[in-house]
Amino acid sequence: MFEHPEGEPVLVLSEDQCWSLLERVAHGRLVTVVGGRADIFPVNCAVQDRSIVLRTAPGSKLAEMAVNESVVFEADGILSDQAWSVVLRGTATRLETSAEREAAEELNLKPWVPTIKDFFVRIRPEEISGRHFQFGEHPERELGEGSEGG
Amino acid sequence: MFEHPEGEPVLVLSEDQCWSLLERVAHGRLVTVVGGRADIFPVNCAVQDRSIVLRTAPGSKLAEMAVNESVVFEADGILSDQAWSVVLRGTATRLETSAEREAAEELNLKPWVPTIKDFFVRIRPEEISGRHFQFGEHPERELGEGSEGG
Repeated sequence: MFEHPEGEPVLVLSEDQCWSLLERVAHGRLVTVVGGRADIFPVNCAVQDRSIVLRTAPGSKLAEMAVNESVVFEADGILSDQAWSVVLRGTATRLETSAEREAAEELNLKPWVPTIKDFFVRIRPEEISGRHFQFGEHPERELGEGSEGG
Repeated sequence: MFEHPEGEPVLVLSEDQCWSLLERVAHGRLVTVVGGRADIFPVNCAVQDRSIVLRTAPGSKLAEMAVNESVVFEADGILSDQAWSVVLRGTATRLETSAEREAAEELNLKPWVPTIKDFFVRIRPEEISGRHFQFGEHPERELGEGSEGG
């Protein structure tokens, strides 16, 4: 699926390639920032209409998204010889209407913490980027290169 | 390994349990914050003396850690019936001296992008927290609970 130009260990993925990878994952990580302090939460997730839908119990990630709706979502897949990572930056909104919730119910998402009360959150993307890494041998390094400043 | 009190889906892990999980992973995610904007990078990693060591090629994560050395590191493991996540908050420092680099070399870490010039970074923890999730059935929800404000 990922053809690298010869000798290039890193391939920058197209938007289509990023979405195609996200469609295949069932979990990722949500990063929130409040007052300059980041938090990260593992979440289950699904793709719907090129947005990410999460389902969550009440708690700190919901509270933090209410304070700052600008979030980052990451998913990755790491094998022994290759890896990929997709990062999506966007705006998180709680799904409030019955119609929105019904559409999200179809994704069959479950929050990790069973609860009587839970919430759907949709992250609408503003930026999406991804990279695919082909692992190879580490080139020989010269002695002393670690002493350089910078 | 993780005995939940009866009926409790979430177990808060002890510091020892968190480190024992981190010692078994080879990759995680590094979150940096610059100017209130978070970035997230998948990284390979190893534990050494209850700190996290990364090896990285030059690039944005190294630049961002130079601007704000307060970082968050996350690793998780997600199976069909259970999951865990450990989040470590700490200070990132580039290893500069030959002695530091030699100690880090013993970890046999490789950066994902082969490069002539690479860097070791150590994250010294200030806080570590972890949770283990035991998945179970989602309780029946009442009709109309999604319409509540908040």
